[in-house]
Amino acid sequence: MSDIKARIIKQVAPDLAQVEKALEENLDPNLALVREIASHLLFSGGKRLRPLLMIHSARACGYDTGFEILFSVLFEYLHAATLLHDDVVDEADMRRGKKAAHTKWSVPKVVLTGDFLLARALAIAAKTREPRVISVVANITQAMSQGEIDQLEKKGQKDLSEAQYLGIIERKTAVLIQGACQSGAIISKAPREKEEALASYGYHLGMAFQMTDDLLDYTATARELGKNPGADMREGKLTLPLISSLARANDKDREWMHAMIVDPVFDQGRFEELKEKLLTLGGIAYTQERVNNHVEKAKTALGIFEDSDSKDLLYLIADYSIERKV
Amino acid sequence: MSDIKARIIKQVAPDLAQVEKALEENLDPNLALVREIASHLLFSGGKRLRPLLMIHSARACGYDTGFEILFSVLFEYLHAATLLHDDVVDEADMRRGKKAAHTKWSVPKVVLTGDFLLARALAIAAKTREPRVISVVANITQAMSQGEIDQLEKKGQKDLSEAQYLGIIERKTAVLIQGACQSGAIISKAPREKEEALASYGYHLGMAFQMTDDLLDYTATARELGKNPGADMREGKLTLPLISSLARANDKDREWMHAMIVDPVFDQGRFEELKEKLLTLGGIAYTQERVNNHVEKAKTALGIFEDSDSKDLLYLIADYSIERKV
Repeated sequence: MSDIKARIIKQVAPDLAQVEKALEENLDPNLALVREIASHLLFSGGKRLRPLLMIHSARACGYDTGFEILFSVLFEYLHAATLLHDDVVDEADMRRGKKAAHTKWSVPKVVLTGDFLLARALAIAAKTREPRVISVVANITQAMSQGEIDQLEKKGQKDLSEAQYLGIIERKTAVLIQGACQSGAIISKAPREKEEALASYGYHLGMAFQMTDDLLDYTATARELGKNPGADMREGKLTLPLISSLARANDKDREWMHAMIVDPVFDQGRFEELKEKLLTLGGIAYTQERVNNHVEKAKTALGIFEDSDSKDLLYLIADYSIERKV
Repeated sequence: MSDIKARIIKQVAPDLAQVEKALEENLDPNLALVREIASHLLFSGGKRLRPLLMIHSARACGYDTGFEILFSVLFEYLHAATLLHDDVVDEADMRRGKKAAHTKWSVPKVVLTGDFLLARALAIAAKTREPRVISVVANITQAMSQGEIDQLEKKGQKDLSEAQYLGIIERKTAVLIQGACQSGAIISKAPREKEEALASYGYHLGMAFQMTDDLLDYTATARELGKNPGADMREGKLTLPLISSLARANDKDREWMHAMIVDPVFDQGRFEELKEKLLTLGGIAYTQERVNNHVEKAKTALGIFEDSDSKDLLYLIADYSIERKV
């Protein structure tokens, strides 16, 4: 394990235990089946990144009532809800190293369990008694649903501009992480500049996280990922490593890549060749550079906060988003 | 047109025009496709029952800021969101006399547009700045998603108890109508007894409405319904007219009905025979009696309110739920 990861894990261990407990206690469905489907995803080893970000954003603003743990689980429920609906949308067959929910249960049950988790998130948001937290949750859901539809519409296209890609990942990933951080500031009744700083931190961290995900889909092993690499390519999703390589390719390479993108048959040998091309054309390096850039911006946003353990942790998480392998 | 319906329409005409305008103005998606899918359902001639109930519940409590129109559309968005997800769940092919959304667009797009509408509902709920309205919306979503899963689980069973049926329609229909009425009281900052009275009114009205729906599925024509009658039977859903007839049937009739329920082939001739049986066995009359009973309870709950046009309208709507044909 890397040094950064070890330090993060050590610092968050006590919070994490409480988050797990709160996730379990607040799930509270009336139906065993809902618990079963929701638990399949919720308790399959997620990193609880979003709750931890809300907790430490709040603490970085001086929040100390202890309610931050309870409130924070809303972002894990919201995240799980969107993963359930995304599974249906993507028709992916693996998620967090387990079979995607819709391959075990019917699409309607998965959709409705997603709705249930969204409702649980909402019920907890209401408990904050901060209408602006509700607005944040509403904006996240709005952005994510439209981002997914947009991505769906563009699936199978052989070209996607970098700007279109950025718009998609912003809505798909960054707004949720941004919202978790911003909500930490809202429940703390932090001054507007701190709220904006945490929103900015969360936004850039979210962009960096998604770009790293997209990078790992070309660079990690199946074992590291918990799912097959090349999933994006299989699903006809163009991500930054490929988009920026296409922009740098000569006609012959571009043609070869376009043919591969539109080919309904996924070939492992050709995928290995593609990975090579992304390295030589510089798409991997460019994506890595963009990740670094977002991480720098995320860290810069934290500058206005006084020193605290939570601030240190937020820095560590930003650094981790560069070096993580899963 | 019946006298009751004519009086309701006359009284709500000015509100209705404003509700339509607010529904249009607040939809506000970034994606044309989302507008297209959402509009397909939202503007296909619904009755706007839920917004009108919130508006007049608020006015019956003396609310007069004018914001009740804006706030009320949240319940139409929420209703439309659940209809979109239900369409996917039910695999029904007609809705409000039009093709169900999922037969025109892919399941993922319909699911995500439902999520978007839910998010719009939420954003408006946040504007009320009343965390209890958010809790009501959260409880509705929670109950509805679980009610649908429960109904799905019980599909195709040849027996369902009346108590199980009541549990299903409560979550599927009554909680939403109850929530619309209760939220009218909450935004008015009405005393708790008025809020409870409106919640009770909405609950019983919702139960009456769903039972009437279930009745019409056996007694109305395709033209009246805007979809084929017998839809519940086709989908393996047992509703009160059938459940209470089964309870009254002799062994021979019960066996005949059970065979029909589990038969995957729907036969129009046998369906006509079934309708006759529900009449002679008393299931139709029993359901009608239960509807009347809920309507009485709904009206009784309104007793504590001072006289007002809005109170009169709430009475009329309760009466209408007995005699409506569509």
